[in-house]
Amino acid sequence: MFKLYYSPGSCALASHIALEEADVDYEAIRIDFGAEEQRKPAYLSINPKGRVPALVTAQGILTETPAILLFIAQSYPQAGLAPLDDIFDLARLQAFNSYLCSTVHVAHAHRQRGNRWADDPAAIADMQRKVPQTVGACFKLIENEMFEGPWVMGETYSLCDPYFYTVARWLEGGKVDTTKLPKTMAHMQRMEARPAVKTVLDNHFS
Amino acid sequence: MFKLYYSPGSCALASHIALEEADVDYEAIRIDFGAEEQRKPAYLSINPKGRVPALVTAQGILTETPAILLFIAQSYPQAGLAPLDDIFDLARLQAFNSYLCSTVHVAHAHRQRGNRWADDPAAIADMQRKVPQTVGACFKLIENEMFEGPWVMGETYSLCDPYFYTVARWLEGGKVDTTKLPKTMAHMQRMEARPAVKTVLDNHFS
Repeated sequence: MFKLYYSPGSCALASHIALEEADVDYEAIRIDFGAEEQRKPAYLSINPKGRVPALVTAQGILTETPAILLFIAQSYPQAGLAPLDDIFDLARLQAFNSYLCSTVHVAHAHRQRGNRWADDPAAIADMQRKVPQTVGACFKLIENEMFEGPWVMGETYSLCDPYFYTVARWLEGGKVDTTKLPKTMAHMQRMEARPAVKTVLDNHFS
Repeated sequence: MFKLYYSPGSCALASHIALEEADVDYEAIRIDFGAEEQRKPAYLSINPKGRVPALVTAQGILTETPAILLFIAQSYPQAGLAPLDDIFDLARLQAFNSYLCSTVHVAHAHRQRGNRWADDPAAIADMQRKVPQTVGACFKLIENEMFEGPWVMGETYSLCDPYFYTVARWLEGGKVDTTKLPKTMAHMQRMEARPAVKTVLDNHFS
Protein backbone atom coordinates (compact mmCIF):
# COMPACT_ATOMS: atom_id res chain seq x y z
CA MET A 1 0.00 0.00 0.00
CA PHE A 2 1.21 3.49 -0.84
CA LYS A 3 1.56 6.19 1.77
CA LEU A 4 1.04 9.77 0.63
CA TYR A 5 2.38 12.51 2.89
CA TYR A 6 0.44 15.72 2.39
CA SER A 7 -0.55 19.02 3.92
CA PRO A 8 -4.02 20.48 3.30
CA GLY A 9 -3.88 23.33 0.80
CA SER A 10 -0.52 22.24 -0.66
CA CYS A 11 0.18 20.91 -4.14
CA ALA A 12 0.00 17.38 -2.65
CA LEU A 13 -3.73 17.58 -3.44
CA ALA A 14 -2.94 16.76 -7.09
CA SER A 15 -1.27 13.45 -6.20
CA HIS A 16 -4.02 12.70 -3.69
CA ILE A 17 -6.69 13.08 -6.39
CA ALA A 18 -4.69 11.00 -8.90
CA LEU A 19 -4.37 8.13 -6.41
CA GLU A 20 -8.11 8.21 -5.82
CA GLU A 21 -8.89 8.41 -9.56
CA ALA A 22 -6.63 5.39 -10.20
CA ASP A 23 -8.49 3.47 -7.46
CA VAL A 24 -5.23 2.70 -5.70
CA ASP A 25 -4.92 1.35 -2.18
CA TYR A 26 -3.24 4.18 -0.26
CA GLU A 27 -3.02 5.85 3.11
CA ALA A 28 -2.92 9.65 3.28
CA ILE A 29 -0.78 10.96 6.15
CA ARG A 30 -1.19 14.59 7.14
CA ILE A 31 1.89 16.66 7.96
CA ASP A 32 1.17 19.60 10.24
CA PHE A 33 2.81 22.64 8.63
CA GLY A 34 1.47 24.83 11.49
CA ALA A 35 3.70 22.87 13.88
CA GLU A 36 6.55 22.88 11.30
CA GLU A 37 6.39 19.09 11.24
CA GLN A 38 7.87 19.16 7.73
CA ARG A 39 11.20 20.43 9.12
CA LYS A 40 11.50 17.87 11.92
CA PRO A 41 13.84 14.86 11.72
CA ALA A 42 11.04 12.29 11.44
CA TYR A 43 9.72 13.84 8.24
CA LEU A 44 13.11 14.89 6.88
CA SER A 45 14.06 11.20 6.93
CA ILE A 46 11.19 10.67 4.45
CA ASN A 47 11.75 13.81 2.36
CA PRO A 48 14.98 15.72 3.07
CA LYS A 49 13.56 18.70 1.15
CA GLY A 50 11.04 19.27 3.92
CA ARG A 51 8.19 19.56 1.45
CA VAL A 52 5.10 17.63 0.43
CA PRO A 53 4.04 15.52 -1.37
CA ALA A 54 6.11 12.41 -0.72
CA LEU A 55 4.88 9.02 -1.88
CA VAL A 56 6.18 5.93 -0.12
CA THR A 57 6.13 2.92 -2.46
CA ALA A 58 7.41 -0.65 -2.17
CA GLN A 59 10.47 0.37 -4.25
CA GLY A 60 11.28 3.59 -2.39
CA ILE A 61 10.14 7.15 -1.81
CA LEU A 62 9.17 9.56 -4.59
CA THR A 63 8.83 13.33 -4.43
CA GLU A 64 7.87 16.13 -6.88
CA THR A 65 4.32 16.29 -8.20
CA PRO A 66 4.97 15.74 -11.95
CA ALA A 67 7.06 12.63 -11.18
CA ILE A 68 4.53 11.19 -8.73
CA LEU A 69 1.68 11.79 -11.16
CA LEU A 70 3.46 10.03 -14.03
CA PHE A 71 4.38 7.17 -11.70
CA ILE A 72 0.71 6.69 -10.79
CA ALA A 73 -0.37 6.77 -14.46
CA GLN A 74 2.31 4.28 -15.52
CA SER A 75 1.69 1.98 -12.55
CA TYR A 76 -2.08 1.89 -13.19
CA PRO A 77 -2.45 2.14 -16.97
CA GLN A 78 -6.05 0.91 -16.79
CA ALA A 79 -6.97 4.24 -15.16
CA GLY A 80 -6.17 6.00 -18.45
CA LEU A 81 -4.64 9.04 -16.79
CA ALA A 82 -1.98 9.66 -19.47
CA PRO A 83 -1.47 8.89 -23.19
CA LEU A 84 1.23 6.32 -22.38
CA ASP A 85 1.41 4.93 -25.93
CA ASP A 86 1.90 8.31 -27.64
CA ILE A 87 5.33 9.79 -27.01
CA PHE A 88 4.43 13.25 -28.29
CA ASP A 89 1.11 13.54 -26.45
CA LEU A 90 2.77 12.33 -23.26
CA ALA A 91 5.43 15.03 -23.72
CA ARG A 92 2.70 17.67 -24.14
CA LEU A 93 1.14 16.48 -20.90
CA GLN A 94 4.51 16.61 -19.15
CA ALA A 95 5.16 20.09 -20.57
CA PHE A 96 1.89 21.34 -19.10
CA ASN A 97 2.63 19.87 -15.67
CA SER A 98 6.21 21.16 -15.84
CA TYR A 99 4.88 24.67 -16.50
CA LEU A 100 2.64 24.33 -13.46
CA CYS A 101 5.51 23.33 -11.16
CA SER A 102 8.25 25.61 -12.50
CA THR A 103 6.23 28.76 -13.24
CA VAL A 104 2.64 28.77 -11.94
CA HIS A 105 3.28 27.23 -8.52
CA VAL A 106 6.38 29.43 -8.16
CA ALA A 107 4.40 32.59 -9.02
CA HIS A 108 1.83 31.65 -6.38
CA ALA A 109 4.55 30.87 -3.81
CA HIS A 110 5.73 34.48 -3.76
CA ARG A 111 2.60 35.29 -1.75
CA GLN A 112 3.24 33.15 1.32
CA ARG A 113 6.74 31.78 0.84
CA GLY A 114 8.64 34.93 -0.15
CA ASN A 115 11.21 34.21 2.57
CA ARG A 116 12.57 31.46 0.34
CA TRP A 117 14.05 34.14 -1.94
CA ALA A 118 14.42 37.35 0.12
CA ASP A 119 15.03 38.42 3.71
CA ASP A 120 13.93 42.06 3.84
CA PRO A 121 10.24 42.32 4.91
CA ALA A 122 9.79 45.17 2.40
CA ALA A 123 11.04 42.92 -0.41
CA ILE A 124 8.70 40.14 0.66
CA ALA A 125 5.79 42.62 0.72
CA ASP A 126 6.71 43.81 -2.77
CA MET A 127 6.64 40.21 -4.03
CA GLN A 128 3.21 39.73 -2.48
CA ARG A 129 1.86 42.81 -4.25
CA LYS A 130 2.84 41.43 -7.63
CA VAL A 131 1.21 38.00 -7.20
CA PRO A 132 -2.23 38.85 -8.65
CA GLN A 133 -0.53 40.13 -11.80
CA THR A 134 2.00 37.31 -12.29
CA VAL A 135 -0.38 34.47 -11.40
CA GLY A 136 -3.15 36.06 -13.46
CA ALA A 137 -0.83 36.23 -16.49
CA CYS A 138 0.04 32.52 -16.12
CA PHE A 139 -3.62 31.49 -16.07
CA LYS A 140 -4.49 33.79 -18.96
CA LEU A 141 -1.69 32.18 -21.00
CA ILE A 142 -3.02 28.73 -20.09
CA GLU A 143 -6.55 29.69 -21.15
CA ASN A 144 -5.37 31.27 -24.41
CA GLU A 145 -2.68 28.81 -25.49
CA MET A 146 -2.84 25.50 -23.64
CA PHE A 147 -6.26 24.62 -22.24
CA GLU A 148 -8.23 22.62 -24.79
CA GLY A 149 -11.44 21.87 -22.89
CA PRO A 150 -13.47 20.42 -21.42
CA TRP A 151 -10.35 18.93 -19.79
CA VAL A 152 -6.87 20.42 -20.01
CA MET A 153 -5.74 18.12 -22.82
CA GLY A 154 -9.12 17.98 -24.58
CA GLU A 155 -11.82 15.34 -24.40
CA THR A 156 -9.86 13.01 -22.14
CA TYR A 157 -9.30 13.60 -18.43
CA SER A 158 -5.58 13.26 -17.59
CA LEU A 159 -2.87 13.95 -15.02
CA CYS A 160 -3.00 17.62 -15.99
CA ASP A 161 -6.49 18.07 -14.55
CA PRO A 162 -5.94 17.38 -10.83
CA TYR A 163 -2.74 19.45 -10.92
CA PHE A 164 -4.36 22.37 -12.75
CA TYR A 165 -7.29 22.22 -10.31
CA THR A 166 -4.88 22.29 -7.37
CA VAL A 167 -3.08 25.47 -8.45
CA ALA A 168 -6.41 27.06 -9.49
CA ARG A 169 -7.69 26.64 -5.92
CA TRP A 170 -5.04 29.19 -4.85
CA LEU A 171 -6.37 31.95 -7.15
CA GLU A 172 -8.83 33.35 -4.66
CA GLY A 173 -6.27 33.60 -1.84
CA GLY A 174 -3.88 35.22 -4.30
CA LYS A 175 -6.49 37.90 -5.08
CA VAL A 176 -6.36 37.11 -8.77
CA ASP A 177 -9.30 38.48 -10.78
CA THR A 178 -11.07 35.21 -11.55
CA THR A 179 -13.82 36.94 -13.58
CA LYS A 180 -11.23 37.03 -16.38
CA LEU A 181 -10.61 33.27 -16.18
CA PRO A 182 -13.89 31.63 -17.24
CA LYS A 183 -12.33 28.41 -18.56
CA THR A 184 -10.44 27.88 -15.31
CA MET A 185 -13.54 28.49 -13.20
CA ALA A 186 -15.64 26.09 -15.31
CA HIS A 187 -12.88 23.49 -15.03
CA MET A 188 -12.93 23.80 -11.23
CA GLN A 189 -16.66 23.11 -11.19
CA ARG A 190 -16.20 20.15 -13.54
CA MET A 191 -13.51 18.77 -11.22
CA GLU A 192 -15.62 19.19 -8.10
CA ALA A 193 -18.43 17.17 -9.70
CA ARG A 194 -16.17 14.10 -9.98
CA PRO A 195 -16.72 11.45 -7.29
CA ALA A 196 -12.97 10.91 -6.76
CA VAL A 197 -12.43 14.63 -6.18
CA LYS A 198 -15.34 14.82 -3.74
CA THR A 199 -13.92 11.88 -1.80
CA VAL A 200 -10.47 13.44 -1.60
CA LEU A 201 -11.74 16.89 -0.61
CA ASP A 202 -13.77 15.31 2.21
CA ASN A 203 -10.70 13.53 3.57
CA HIS A 204 -7.91 15.96 2.66
CA PHE A 205 -9.32 18.91 4.59
CA SER A 206 -11.12 17.11 7.40
CA MET B 1 14.50 17.13 -38.65
CA PHE B 2 14.03 18.76 -35.27
CA LYS B 3 14.59 22.45 -34.70
CA LEU B 4 15.78 23.51 -31.25
CA TYR B 5 15.35 27.17 -30.34
CA TYR B 6 17.89 28.19 -27.72
CA SER B 7 19.76 31.08 -26.18
CA PRO B 8 23.37 30.67 -25.05
CA GLY B 9 23.59 30.37 -21.27
CA SER B 10 19.94 29.37 -20.86
CA CYS B 11 18.55 26.03 -19.70
CA ALA B 12 18.13 25.11 -23.40
CA LEU B 13 21.68 23.76 -23.16
CA ALA B 14 20.32 20.60 -21.50
CA SER B 15 18.06 19.76 -24.45
CA HIS B 16 20.84 20.67 -26.87
CA ILE B 17 23.20 18.17 -25.24
CA ALA B 18 20.52 15.47 -25.10
CA LEU B 19 19.85 15.82 -28.83
CA GLU B 20 23.56 15.48 -29.53
CA GLU B 21 23.93 12.50 -27.19
CA ALA B 22 21.03 10.75 -28.92
CA ASP B 23 22.68 11.37 -32.30
CA VAL B 24 19.53 13.04 -33.62
CA ASP B 25 19.34 15.08 -36.80
CA TYR B 26 18.55 18.60 -35.56
CA GLU B 27 19.10 22.26 -36.31
CA ALA B 28 19.88 24.63 -33.42
CA ILE B 29 18.42 28.11 -33.90
CA ARG B 30 19.75 30.89 -31.71
CA ILE B 31 17.31 33.42 -30.25
CA ASP B 32 18.94 36.76 -29.41
CA PHE B 33 17.85 37.62 -25.87
CA GLY B 34 19.94 40.82 -26.04
CA ALA B 35 17.62 42.06 -28.80
CA GLU B 36 14.57 40.70 -26.88
CA GLU B 37 13.87 38.42 -29.84
CA GLN B 38 12.06 36.04 -27.49
CA ARG B 39 9.29 38.61 -26.95
CA LYS B 40 8.71 39.39 -30.63
CA PRO B 41 5.76 38.01 -32.62
CA ALA B 42 7.86 35.68 -34.78
CA TYR B 43 9.13 33.77 -31.75
CA LEU B 44 5.93 34.07 -29.71
CA SER B 45 4.19 32.19 -32.53
CA ILE B 46 6.57 29.30 -31.74
CA ASN B 47 6.50 29.61 -27.96
CA PRO B 48 3.87 31.98 -26.52
CA LYS B 49 5.69 31.88 -23.18
CA GLY B 50 8.58 33.82 -24.71
CA ARG B 51 11.13 31.41 -23.27
CA VAL B 52 13.58 28.81 -24.50
CA PRO B 53 13.93 25.93 -25.18
CA ALA B 54 11.31 25.11 -27.79
CA LEU B 55 11.61 21.96 -29.88
CA VAL B 56 9.85 21.85 -33.23
CA THR B 57 8.97 18.26 -34.16
CA ALA B 58 6.95 16.69 -36.98
CA GLN B 59 3.98 16.37 -34.59
CA GLY B 60 4.14 19.85 -33.11
CA ILE B 61 6.10 22.11 -30.79
CA LEU B 62 7.26 21.12 -27.33
CA THR B 63 8.46 23.34 -24.48
CA GLU B 64 9.74 22.82 -20.91
CA THR B 65 13.07 21.08 -20.36
CA PRO B 66 11.90 17.97 -18.44
CA ALA B 67 9.27 17.25 -21.11
CA ILE B 68 11.66 17.77 -24.03
CA LEU B 69 14.29 15.57 -22.38
CA LEU B 70 11.85 12.70 -21.80
CA PHE B 71 10.57 13.07 -25.38
CA ILE B 72 14.13 12.68 -26.72
CA ALA B 73 14.78 9.62 -24.53
CA GLN B 74 11.52 7.94 -25.54
CA SER B 75 11.94 8.80 -29.23
CA TYR B 76 15.49 7.40 -29.34
CA PRO B 77 15.48 4.50 -26.86
CA GLN B 78 18.69 3.12 -28.34
CA ALA B 79 20.53 6.13 -26.82
CA GLY B 80 19.78 4.74 -23.35
CA LEU B 81 19.16 8.16 -21.80
CA ALA B 82 16.44 7.00 -19.38
CA PRO B 83 15.35 3.75 -17.66
CA LEU B 84 12.25 3.51 -19.85
CA ASP B 85 11.38 -0.03 -18.76
CA ASP B 86 11.46 0.68 -15.02
CA ILE B 87 8.53 2.81 -13.86
CA PHE B 88 10.05 3.60 -10.46
CA ASP B 89 13.52 4.47 -11.74
CA LEU B 90 12.01 6.64 -14.44
CA ALA B 91 9.98 8.44 -11.76
CA ARG B 92 13.17 9.02 -9.74
CA LEU B 93 14.79 10.53 -12.82
CA GLN B 94 11.74 12.72 -13.42
CA ALA B 95 11.73 13.77 -9.75
CA PHE B 96 15.34 14.93 -10.02
CA ASN B 97 14.67 16.93 -13.19
CA SER B 98 11.49 18.34 -11.68
CA TYR B 99 13.49 19.56 -8.67
CA LEU B 100 15.93 21.24 -11.05
CA CYS B 101 13.18 23.12 -12.92
CA SER B 102 10.89 24.00 -10.01
CA THR B 103 13.45 24.79 -7.31
CA VAL B 104 17.09 25.01 -8.49
CA HIS B 105 16.50 26.94 -11.73
CA VAL B 106 14.05 29.19 -9.86
CA ALA B 107 16.56 29.90 -7.09
CA HIS B 108 19.14 30.85 -9.74
CA ALA B 109 16.62 33.02 -11.60
CA HIS B 110 16.29 35.42 -8.67
CA ARG B 111 19.72 36.76 -9.61
CA GLN B 112 18.97 38.06 -13.10
CA ARG B 113 15.21 37.68 -13.48
CA GLY B 114 13.97 39.17 -10.20
CA ASN B 115 11.63 41.46 -12.14
CA ARG B 116 9.45 38.43 -12.77
CA TRP B 117 8.36 38.52 -9.13
CA ALA B 118 8.95 42.06 -7.83
CA ASP B 119 9.00 45.65 -9.11
CA ASP B 120 10.90 47.60 -6.46
CA PRO B 121 14.66 47.76 -7.31
CA ALA B 122 15.44 47.35 -3.60
CA ALA B 123 13.42 44.13 -3.50
CA ILE B 124 15.18 42.83 -6.60
CA ALA B 125 18.55 43.65 -5.03
CA ASP B 126 17.55 41.82 -1.86
CA MET B 127 16.66 38.74 -3.92
CA GLN B 128 20.06 38.89 -5.63
CA ARG B 129 21.85 39.00 -2.29
CA LYS B 130 20.22 35.77 -1.20
CA VAL B 131 21.08 33.74 -4.32
CA PRO B 132 24.44 32.32 -3.16
CA GLN B 133 22.72 30.98 -0.03
CA THR B 134 19.59 29.54 -1.67
CA VAL B 135 21.34 28.04 -4.69
CA GLY B 136 24.16 26.73 -2.50
CA ALA B 137 21.61 24.98 -0.26
CA CYS B 138 19.98 23.32 -3.30
CA PHE B 139 23.30 21.94 -4.54
CA LYS B 140 24.32 20.81 -1.06
CA LEU B 141 21.03 18.91 -0.77
CA ILE B 142 21.64 17.33 -4.18
CA GLU B 143 25.16 16.25 -3.17
CA ASN B 144 24.01 14.87 0.19
CA GLU B 145 20.73 13.22 -0.78
CA MET B 146 20.35 12.71 -4.52
CA PHE B 147 23.61 12.53 -6.46
CA GLU B 148 24.79 8.92 -6.66
CA GLY B 149 27.94 9.26 -8.76
CA PRO B 150 29.75 9.13 -11.04
CA TRP B 151 26.57 10.24 -12.85
CA VAL B 152 23.51 11.72 -11.17
CA MET B 153 21.59 8.43 -11.13
CA GLY B 154 24.63 6.21 -10.54
CA GLU B 155 26.68 4.21 -13.02
CA THR B 156 24.50 5.07 -16.01
CA TYR B 157 24.50 8.45 -17.75
CA SER B 158 20.94 9.76 -18.11
CA LEU B 159 18.75 12.78 -18.84
CA CYS B 160 19.59 14.10 -15.39
CA ASP B 161 23.22 14.72 -16.31
CA PRO B 162 22.94 17.36 -19.05
CA TYR B 163 20.30 19.19 -17.02
CA PHE B 164 22.34 19.09 -13.80
CA TYR B 165 25.41 20.26 -15.72
CA THR B 166 23.41 23.15 -17.22
CA VAL B 167 22.27 24.54 -13.87
CA ALA B 168 25.72 23.90 -12.34
CA ARG B 169 27.27 26.16 -14.99
CA TRP B 170 25.41 29.08 -13.35
CA LEU B 171 27.05 28.57 -9.94
CA GLU B 172 30.03 30.79 -10.63
CA GLY B 173 27.93 33.72 -11.88
CA GLY B 174 25.70 33.26 -8.82
CA LYS B 175 28.75 33.62 -6.55
CA VAL B 176 28.02 30.29 -4.89
CA ASP B 177 30.96 28.86 -2.93
CA THR B 178 31.85 25.95 -5.21
CA THR B 179 34.67 24.75 -2.93
CA LYS B 180 31.87 23.20 -0.85
CA LEU B 181 30.45 21.31 -3.85
CA PRO B 182 33.13 18.80 -4.85
CA LYS B 183 30.75 16.25 -6.39
CA THR B 184 29.18 18.91 -8.59
CA MET B 185 32.54 20.22 -9.75
CA ALA B 186 33.80 16.71 -10.58
CA HIS B 187 30.58 16.04 -12.47
CA MET B 188 31.11 19.18 -14.57
CA GLN B 189 34.58 17.97 -15.54
CA ARG B 190 33.20 14.53 -16.37
CA MET B 191 30.55 16.15 -18.58
CA GLU B 192 33.04 18.37 -20.39
CA ALA B 193 35.12 15.32 -21.33
CA ARG B 194 32.22 13.83 -23.29
CA PRO B 195 32.46 14.27 -27.08
CA ALA B 196 28.77 15.22 -27.40
CA VAL B 197 29.13 17.95 -24.78
CA LYS B 198 32.27 19.31 -26.45
CA THR B 199 30.45 19.47 -29.78
CA VAL B 200 27.50 21.28 -28.29
CA LEU B 201 29.61 23.77 -26.34
CA ASP B 202 31.52 24.62 -29.53
CA ASN B 203 28.30 25.32 -31.44
CA HIS B 204 26.06 26.66 -28.65
CA PHE B 205 28.30 29.57 -27.67
CA SER B 206 29.94 30.31 -31.01
